Amino acid sequence: MAPPEGPEELMASQSDKRPISTIVIIIAMQTEALPLVNKFQLKEDQDSVFPTGVPWVRYRGTYRDLNINIIWPGKDTALGVDSVGTVSASLVTYASIQALQPDLVINAGTAGGFKAKGAAVGDIFLASEVAFHDRRIPIPILDLYGVGLRQAFSTPDLLKRLGLKVGKLSTGDSLDMSPQDEASIIANDATIKDMEGAAVAYVADLLKVPAIFVKAITDIVDGDKPTAEEFLQNLAAVTVALDQAVTQVIDFITGKCLSDL
Amino acid sequence: MAPPEGPEELMASQSDKRPISTIVIIIAMQTEALPLVNKFQLKEDQDSVFPTGVPWVRYRGTYRDLNINIIWPGKDTALGVDSVGTVSASLVTYASIQALQPDLVINAGTAGGFKAKGAAVGDIFLASEVAFHDRRIPIPILDLYGVGLRQAFSTPDLLKRLGLKVGKLSTGDSLDMSPQDEASIIANDATIKDMEGAAVAYVADLLKVPAIFVKAITDIVDGDKPTAEEFLQNLAAVTVALDQAVTQVIDFITGKCLSDL
Repeated sequence: MAPPEGPEELMASQSDKRPISTIVIIIAMQTEALPLVNKFQLKEDQDSVFPTGVPWVRYRGTYRDLNINIIWPGKDTALGVDSVGTVSASLVTYASIQALQPDLVINAGTAGGFKAKGAAVGDIFLASEVAFHDRRIPIPILDLYGVGLRQAFSTPDLLKRLGLKVGKLSTGDSLDMSPQDEASIIANDATIKDMEGAAVAYVADLLKVPAIFVKAITDIVDGDKPTAEEFLQNLAAVTVALDQAVTQVIDFITGKCLSDL
Repeated sequence: MAPPEGPEELMASQSDKRPISTIVIIIAMQTEALPLVNKFQLKEDQDSVFPTGVPWVRYRGTYRDLNINIIWPGKDTALGVDSVGTVSASLVTYASIQALQPDLVINAGTAGGFKAKGAAVGDIFLASEVAFHDRRIPIPILDLYGVGLRQAFSTPDLLKRLGLKVGKLSTGDSLDMSPQDEASIIANDATIKDMEGAAVAYVADLLKVPAIFVKAITDIVDGDKPTAEEFLQNLAAVTVALDQAVTQVIDFITGKCLSDL
């Protein structure tokens, strides 16, 4: 039997009112992804939905009634390091949404935090909005395109239940922060800084899939320690906190509709 | 009849020895694309190979024996400006290669040039190699991943015949140049600077399609004039030169094999 035809708004509100069935979790680093893969007993997809040659990895499984897909962009085919950053993140978000038609995209990962805005190492944030800080195009309107501000999908009940911190997320392809990046991050009023969020948001918005951003703080950007050193030092411990938070998010989501988040 | 099976190298060398049949030309700005669309009498694809909702536009047609596809990322759906930069460029390159399986990708567009390296406004360059200048990740090997150096497909005969200039191309998502960008551009030994090339190269390399980069100089980065002003002032005139060069490239390619370029 064919579904009843109706205006797009009606279809959208109907999809808001059925339980979330399929989620895609975009995670840039293997270290961040593997504990969750084990926790949910996900299996690496042997019959890849992605083209031959790309290093992208899909871990799939079911948890209660939820189809969980963790997508990791994989190791760079030439250099063997995690394929971090906005280009890889946008590609895997696009390919995953096309192949899996998820109800919700979750971008989970570690991030830098600003202590001046209340962030501390180990904090878990849910981003309220995301923007880029390294796309400066000083031409009217193209400047706004460069910033690429987008709202995260609103999840007031999830926030209340889990007691996560909320802050604005700013994304750029560098681990460090130049004075120009800093000025843009301040203009973005950001509390957290990552290397993928705004790219995931851009693609999810393009393909009309709601997206949320769970970010765990590994390093204090406006602190005394060099970012790379602090990041590597805290990565393992903070990943545990991140994975606990993502597990709580998934537990909360299971059985709920988008409009119940 | 099924094609004879053989090792991958044999297959690759066979494809090098049949005439190029399908090309994808990635052009970020409508102003740059439309004169070529008219010149080759291409038509906008009404039955899009791209997903619903994306602004990406394919102009298609045949010219002598060549299937020409000009792919323009289109106007940002919210802001109405050209979808410039590495995220859009990587997405349309990926989606175009997946849908059209081209023999060759050409990224054509305007760029900034460094007079200290011999560039002048109106010059047409073919990039010898491409890299990013705004992905600073100061962790061993991840630093190289950030730079993302890739060779353009080698086209010695094309170069000789058309008398184009040759230089290294450096890509970043900002139209301006911060001191950190400048240091990376110098490290990349770049003569030209754009906002898409290295992203197109990354995706083409991932999917094993040869790519070349035809770039026309609109502004002198190490000159006296503000980049945005000089860029907008020269855009129309330089686009004419760019489109002439791309036409010459297409004329040269027609009927040839990859190994004859």
